[in-house]
Amino acid sequence: MRDVAIYGTGMLRVSEHWDLSVVDLAGRAALEALHDSGLDRVDALLVTNMLSACQTTGQLNLGARVADWVGLRGVEAYKVEAACGSGGAGFRSAWIAVASGAIDLALIVGVEKMTETPGPEITAGLATAADADFEVPMGPSFVALNALIMRRYQHEYGWPHEAFAPFSINAHANGARNPLARLQEAVTVDDYRNARMVSDPINLLDASPIGDGAAAIVIGPAERLAPWGQRPRVLVAGSAAATDSLAIHDRRVPLHLAAAEQSAASAYAMAGLGPKEIDLFELHDAFSIMSALSLEACGFAEPGQGPRLAVDGSILPGGRIPIATFGGLKARGHPVGATGVYQLAEVARQLQGEAGDCQLDRARVGMAQNIGGSGATIVTHILRQA
Amino acid sequence: MRDVAIYGTGMLRVSEHWDLSVVDLAGRAALEALHDSGLDRVDALLVTNMLSACQTTGQLNLGARVADWVGLRGVEAYKVEAACGSGGAGFRSAWIAVASGAIDLALIVGVEKMTETPGPEITAGLATAADADFEVPMGPSFVALNALIMRRYQHEYGWPHEAFAPFSINAHANGARNPLARLQEAVTVDDYRNARMVSDPINLLDASPIGDGAAAIVIGPAERLAPWGQRPRVLVAGSAAATDSLAIHDRRVPLHLAAAEQSAASAYAMAGLGPKEIDLFELHDAFSIMSALSLEACGFAEPGQGPRLAVDGSILPGGRIPIATFGGLKARGHPVGATGVYQLAEVARQLQGEAGDCQLDRARVGMAQNIGGSGATIVTHILRQA
Repeated sequence: MRDVAIYGTGMLRVSEHWDLSVVDLAGRAALEALHDSGLDRVDALLVTNMLSACQTTGQLNLGARVADWVGLRGVEAYKVEAACGSGGAGFRSAWIAVASGAIDLALIVGVEKMTETPGPEITAGLATAADADFEVPMGPSFVALNALIMRRYQHEYGWPHEAFAPFSINAHANGARNPLARLQEAVTVDDYRNARMVSDPINLLDASPIGDGAAAIVIGPAERLAPWGQRPRVLVAGSAAATDSLAIHDRRVPLHLAAAEQSAASAYAMAGLGPKEIDLFELHDAFSIMSALSLEACGFAEPGQGPRLAVDGSILPGGRIPIATFGGLKARGHPVGATGVYQLAEVARQLQGEAGDCQLDRARVGMAQNIGGSGATIVTHILRQA
Repeated sequence: MRDVAIYGTGMLRVSEHWDLSVVDLAGRAALEALHDSGLDRVDALLVTNMLSACQTTGQLNLGARVADWVGLRGVEAYKVEAACGSGGAGFRSAWIAVASGAIDLALIVGVEKMTETPGPEITAGLATAADADFEVPMGPSFVALNALIMRRYQHEYGWPHEAFAPFSINAHANGARNPLARLQEAVTVDDYRNARMVSDPINLLDASPIGDGAAAIVIGPAERLAPWGQRPRVLVAGSAAATDSLAIHDRRVPLHLAAAEQSAASAYAMAGLGPKEIDLFELHDAFSIMSALSLEACGFAEPGQGPRLAVDGSILPGGRIPIATFGGLKARGHPVGATGVYQLAEVARQLQGEAGDCQLDRARVGMAQNIGGSGATIVTHILRQA
């Protein structure tokens, strides 16, 4: 296994892209990443996507389709899917292929087109991340399943709803500085208090917005090799994935993200680092409760104490462990199968000092954690400056 | 990169499994493969599947779901999709992970549940393998796209329709000896002549049947390692994948499977072998025309001469290059996202001398080729006896 570096990144604004198909979205992000890398070919293309089969889109076989669009007809290509954890899983699959020497250069493209699909179909589509035999038939939407977790968490640990407000306020404040964010407006505690309820206790400012989007990353061996002549700027220091049951009621401790702890522990071990060395953490804040659970599972807070890091400002750009530095799922937006690639591209740009108005003062080591289902598939990566 | 061996295989009969969910199907095949291997744990689980999102099934995130069902909760897991080429692509992804040393033991499970879904929805689902922007909106089903290829082929090379009959007759004769085949009845030339037309010139005996099914394979490093104590019986000698345009009209030569030639050439080079050394070939006979095109692209026949190998008996069990030895897609059945794993498990059983009534006299090196779309994503593997 050899060291792997990120050579280029590309991201489209998460938005309503009425004029672009799922293939157009993926292709544009891919070309931007290739341009950023200075490379004009790769050996393999991995597409990460969740919902293109069951929407108005109706396009599977996206690997070959996107490869052709980008001008890479012929290269090996396929899709990796793990619900909303697809992006992280696809990046890991590509990382293994490059680290092994099986291939040299890989292009990972996460893409999702959601806003043209009617709401009920999207709600049904998102529910395919949950247990289709023992959760979905009972009627809860995916938001409702997360609401059960949040309600239980508040009951167990006594946090008032307002303790979660700083997660949303931080994400929106950061999103307001990111021209690629879906939502670019700051919000206040009053906005949070008055936000429309979605599924009690999750209100509109606890929940991330869906959107159309695509993000892409080019990776290759870290040694500076003559044929490419590129200087690696960011290295993959740790990569790991783990799973848990899809159904919440099957988990041993429903308020503990076991797969987050397991994959973070493996990634820390591989990188030879611990939580103390992480300068920023792009976590999977699909709902504010998931921010708290991720921070706890990854060693930044004791069980039940995640909201304290929000309340005391630790998660802010100048704080101990900045999260959602480009807005996170909450404000940058959550194009589900693409989200994991956005997270990794954002960490890379922070480490390169190319985060624009979102740039942190200190960003030498960053972590990205992508979750599929309400904690079922969790992929953790640690990146560091080259 | 280290040598990789197959340690165990499991296959369910392709059939109408009304009593089993998509997760039950996958889980049973996985347990059979684990039992066959004598192992009780793996480091990663890869599920290959095409259509579970958009059917009555409504289950994505199958990696974590199947891992949990099998008793492997916690292990890394995700899904690989490349339409009907998903199985081959997933096996290749797992092969890279094991060959690299990133993980030691992997379980690949191909699964598809199709027969509970209404026909029109299945037809629409299969069409997602074709170009959703430039083919599907014109109205052709996936069968119709293959019918265009077959009609053009007959026009270019002058083969009468009946020249394709031996592909179907061979597959059905072999399927009749395979207790896991969907169709276990032999057919005659008269049956072929009188078969109902599906999409002219593709009749019912040119086309493979869909079905519910699952197949699984356990792979690991080839060195006999103390912790496992298993003797590898089959080695992966070559592995490669390539792509072409989804849309037929975009191909440079629509009657040539460029991605088959490219991936076969790479697999041959990796194995240090050529077509002459291949004892059997599990090709992707979704339609009889695809058998001809695969044989040509992989060096067993000149362009336009694929049907000759059918007419002269070369493809029969005692012939030069036996194909569809367990019935192929045509008779064993085509549970789309699982098919590539069936092909590889069947080749492995031939090489192990465990093919039952389908056993060939000579089976030291075998090839499997899996196709997603009408030639867009093509994955080729060469296996040899350990």
